[in-house]
Amino acid sequence: MQIYDPETSDAIHRSANTTPRRSWRTWLIGRPLPTADAAHQTIGKRVGLAVFASDALSSTAYATQEILVILAAAGVVALQYAFPIAVAIVVLMIIVVVSYEQTIHAYPSGGGAYVVSRENLGEAPAEVAGAALLTDYILTVAVSISSGVAMITSAFPALFDYRIEIALLLIGLVMVVNLRGVKESGMAFAIPAYVFLIAMLVMVAVGMGQWFLGTLGLVENPPEMYTSYETFQLLTPFLLLHAFASGTSAMTGIEAIANGVTAFKEPRSRNAGLVLIWMATILATLFLGITFLANEVGAMPSEIETVVSQIARTVFYGQNFVYLFLVGMTAVILVMAANTAFAGFPRLAAILAQDGFMPRQFTYRGSRLVFSRGIVALALIACILVILFDASVNKLIPLYAIGVFLSFTLSQVGMAVRWWKSGHLQPGEEIVEKSSVLHYDSRWMFKMVTNSLGAFATAIVTLVFGVTKFRDGAWIVVLLIPLLVLGFTAISKHYQNLARQLSLDRNRSFPRIHRQRVILLISGVHQGTLAGLRYAHSLTDDVTAVYVSLDHDEAKKTQEKWRVWGEGVRLVILDSPYRLLIEPILEYIETLCNMRQSNEVITVVVPQFVSRHWWTSILHNQTAFMLRLGLIFRPGVIIIEVPYQVD
Amino acid sequence: MQIYDPETSDAIHRSANTTPRRSWRTWLIGRPLPTADAAHQTIGKRVGLAVFASDALSSTAYATQEILVILAAAGVVALQYAFPIAVAIVVLMIIVVVSYEQTIHAYPSGGGAYVVSRENLGEAPAEVAGAALLTDYILTVAVSISSGVAMITSAFPALFDYRIEIALLLIGLVMVVNLRGVKESGMAFAIPAYVFLIAMLVMVAVGMGQWFLGTLGLVENPPEMYTSYETFQLLTPFLLLHAFASGTSAMTGIEAIANGVTAFKEPRSRNAGLVLIWMATILATLFLGITFLANEVGAMPSEIETVVSQIARTVFYGQNFVYLFLVGMTAVILVMAANTAFAGFPRLAAILAQDGFMPRQFTYRGSRLVFSRGIVALALIACILVILFDASVNKLIPLYAIGVFLSFTLSQVGMAVRWWKSGHLQPGEEIVEKSSVLHYDSRWMFKMVTNSLGAFATAIVTLVFGVTKFRDGAWIVVLLIPLLVLGFTAISKHYQNLARQLSLDRNRSFPRIHRQRVILLISGVHQGTLAGLRYAHSLTDDVTAVYVSLDHDEAKKTQEKWRVWGEGVRLVILDSPYRLLIEPILEYIETLCNMRQSNEVITVVVPQFVSRHWWTSILHNQTAFMLRLGLIFRPGVIIIEVPYQVD
Repeated sequence: MQIYDPETSDAIHRSANTTPRRSWRTWLIGRPLPTADAAHQTIGKRVGLAVFASDALSSTAYATQEILVILAAAGVVALQYAFPIAVAIVVLMIIVVVSYEQTIHAYPSGGGAYVVSRENLGEAPAEVAGAALLTDYILTVAVSISSGVAMITSAFPALFDYRIEIALLLIGLVMVVNLRGVKESGMAFAIPAYVFLIAMLVMVAVGMGQWFLGTLGLVENPPEMYTSYETFQLLTPFLLLHAFASGTSAMTGIEAIANGVTAFKEPRSRNAGLVLIWMATILATLFLGITFLANEVGAMPSEIETVVSQIARTVFYGQNFVYLFLVGMTAVILVMAANTAFAGFPRLAAILAQDGFMPRQFTYRGSRLVFSRGIVALALIACILVILFDASVNKLIPLYAIGVFLSFTLSQVGMAVRWWKSGHLQPGEEIVEKSSVLHYDSRWMFKMVTNSLGAFATAIVTLVFGVTKFRDGAWIVVLLIPLLVLGFTAISKHYQNLARQLSLDRNRSFPRIHRQRVILLISGVHQGTLAGLRYAHSLTDDVTAVYVSLDHDEAKKTQEKWRVWGEGVRLVILDSPYRLLIEPILEYIETLCNMRQSNEVITVVVPQFVSRHWWTSILHNQTAFMLRLGLIFRPGVIIIEVPYQVD
Repeated sequence: MQIYDPETSDAIHRSANTTPRRSWRTWLIGRPLPTADAAHQTIGKRVGLAVFASDALSSTAYATQEILVILAAAGVVALQYAFPIAVAIVVLMIIVVVSYEQTIHAYPSGGGAYVVSRENLGEAPAEVAGAALLTDYILTVAVSISSGVAMITSAFPALFDYRIEIALLLIGLVMVVNLRGVKESGMAFAIPAYVFLIAMLVMVAVGMGQWFLGTLGLVENPPEMYTSYETFQLLTPFLLLHAFASGTSAMTGIEAIANGVTAFKEPRSRNAGLVLIWMATILATLFLGITFLANEVGAMPSEIETVVSQIARTVFYGQNFVYLFLVGMTAVILVMAANTAFAGFPRLAAILAQDGFMPRQFTYRGSRLVFSRGIVALALIACILVILFDASVNKLIPLYAIGVFLSFTLSQVGMAVRWWKSGHLQPGEEIVEKSSVLHYDSRWMFKMVTNSLGAFATAIVTLVFGVTKFRDGAWIVVLLIPLLVLGFTAISKHYQNLARQLSLDRNRSFPRIHRQRVILLISGVHQGTLAGLRYAHSLTDDVTAVYVSLDHDEAKKTQEKWRVWGEGVRLVILDSPYRLLIEPILEYIETLCNMRQSNEVITVVVPQFVSRHWWTSILHNQTAFMLRLGLIFRPGVIIIEVPYQVD
């Protein structure tokens, strides 16, 4: 024992040096880390890029194709609109990135849409942003893993029947890597992320070089053109907007860095901000490059072959090793994209839990200092989604990205409000908020306009998503987000109500308990009963033994034995003509409660024998458990189970 | 309150006139019956025949066909051996019935194979008999219901895809009828049983009359002959034995009456004995008649049309209303056959539980005075079987009847031993056994030979079953019965060990508890904590508050608050560097236990807030529950959960 700060403290501090036991958990996720190690579990810029950007970068594997799939409804000529649309998306991306750059520096303790909404817009919009983000993190895992599995099964069609099992296995793998801790998961993921990145950049660079030299070819035997519309469409603004909306799936994942600022090494904001700019630059380059090349080589949107695959085999002259390597790395990066969500979801859940919108348990750090409960919850829900939707990207895609754009919108509205407030401060004046300090900013008008523009654009995209994809599955998300918000509100109310009722301000005088009345339940007279009797006697002298009689002869026997062993304690026998066990006891206690004086507490002692073999519990009545259920809501009645150990 | 027998008793008797609440259960299974009504729930001979015999009688629907299916392997000519085999089976049946007639009179409190084996052969053979019977009751339900559903789906092929659902529904129906009580289930089942009986007897009588008058026709367009062998077989003794063994499925269900003697009105043994003779007579008549007619009309064993159906349409001149009525009633009686098992299984389970081989709960009578737990357990296991075997009779049949013949064998060996013992008594001398009284019997030699013959024959049948059906599924039963016996032994050991350890003879002096040491676990300082503190103070003055510190600042705050509110109670703070909650507490209590004096008990008080909304429990740590798990095996440590009700 170790006495702590003896002058100022009357408490005894005792350090529990319990090194947790080694077990299969240790083998799986590594040895436990003490809380003091927390600061070390941060990541540098290079690892950060791999951890947070693989989601965003992997979307280049399908974003161009999603634009083409929509445009194709208006014929081959309409495909040429893909590049201008890609440019528009990049402009939108720049606006969003600039906004998030400002957010990261304004909120160095991490945040993103939820925190920004909470600070600037209030509780309800914040809950909506939280719900939208959680939904989308889950979908990121389900979509990315399913898409990655689709790549694998394209290469090995024999595995197609096992795609759900493979997807679940991969989710489990990513979960375990994340349970080990963010630093190691960064290392595990950094190398393949960079290999993919370089492979893609090489493809774009070689293709552009060939175009410049005039040697770029056309796709040989292009696949049949496919469009998601069933009938021919005119090239209306709506169609262009739809194509634009589909293409913006390239932007999913940008949010992640702003949410995860705290995972970066100090100076956090600077490092996170730099990584965001790197990521956006690479993303824009790849996305524009791929879209440009897709048009130039005449790639067709198809169900059979991806656009990236068509470009690759044109640029690299056939389905050779380089081609296979690129397609394989795309599959790997898609699976890894799920890791981004595994970095983001648990952090957001912890913030929401901290604010009382989700169960407190999400704020606890596990043995490896990560938010284990959030990681496991994400994996479980994603697995359920994968099973429900047969690991099919086509079925999952309509649910995807709505949440992200809803949160983008809320985040940028929030930033706009913030700049407006900032513009109305005096220079030097400051407002201290929960997660940040607000100063006067001389460029508030420009920044507000930028964010408002972004908010407007992303709001449109959200609407177009919701409308065009509603019947394909978006309704699920449209329904789910309000339900989640209702859940948040209910949980929040519960915690607030609890805090109010537990508050010490409520009632400053407590009557002391003057009388202990003990009811000893007996099922017969044996060693276990006597152990209970001894314990009951140690509490008070006012002990009454109670026996429920199902059988007259048994009751007689018990009564006679009690006369010998009962140490003079009064015995009440409750006749139970309907062979009920719990109900007569509850009725009896009810009667006692009604006759009870104030400051009197009734303690029910239930002797219970316990055995080291778990299975033996089904061989006995769980009277104490049933009584607890029946009496837990009755104030002033306490149930004590007195275990009697049997070997 | 009502004082009971005041001169001789010091206990207060209080009659709990709790009429149990009306609810969906009352609606489903009827109002609860008081224990005093028990004697009324017995049945007369006519209802008894319907309840106990429908299993045995329904087997006439398939027994003949099963003989033919085997014989067909040796060609059409071999089918003529069916009648001699049927005669041999009837001879065996007479031997078994005579044996059971003797058993019923020797064991008026019910018994059958398990009780007979227990009294005469010892514990191990009795356990084997019990396991065999339980297995076969379960299979009776699964096979009969599946077979009945097969009849229904033969008539309405559109229902074929829902056969599992229909089977589960029917099992549920039979379960509910049985949960209402044996008398009512008898009434519900008596009428259709008698209608089936009369219809079958009419068919056999008409057919025999036609044969006598020389007007009996041949089956028109008989279905293709089917045999369960894949290749042609010679008519070896083994093949004849196999056909004989398959045909003995006609005898399943005979055991039920001997097990259920107590369900009959007084004089029980006489009534039960008479019903057994009626049943055997009808069974033999139907079985011989159907087998005879099957050969005379040239019925073919088939997968498409049953033999009974072929006879019926030949005797009644086509598929007219009379034919449809007979086939329909056969379907109904097959479903009802399951009822026999529902009458037998719970009674046997209760006897086994009484002897300590199964969980005690099986001896409890439910609100309708039936052994509800046995009924529900049987229904659940049968449902699982139906699901696993796709409600297919073909898949289930190989598992069936082995248990019955094993128990027949054990029962008759037991009876033979009994007669042998009886023969070695002096006239007038008697041995009082647990369930019966053994006298000298002058005809002991004859009876012993009869039973030995029966034992030998049924043992052969059991062996033939086991060998010929092993690979088709009998191995499951061959494996299951020893496993059940192992389970019985383990349960029996547990109860015996418990009884020994709870026995009051073991240790007659108990030290009184002299010191109560209370540990109050606190997770913070709030109303719930103070409620716990008040309760702790009512137990003893030796209270120590314990707080687990996951966060240094929180610990500081708690310590300061405790100084204000803690009423001077000492506070121990346990540092937990690995963020573990339960382990440091366990370690601390361990230390206290090691320093503990004798006669000192440690009580851990855990304040726990409870809310009326069940879902809120996932929002809180279940510390008390986890501690209970960790400490339940440590003598001298008691955990008290002090609930603090939050609205």
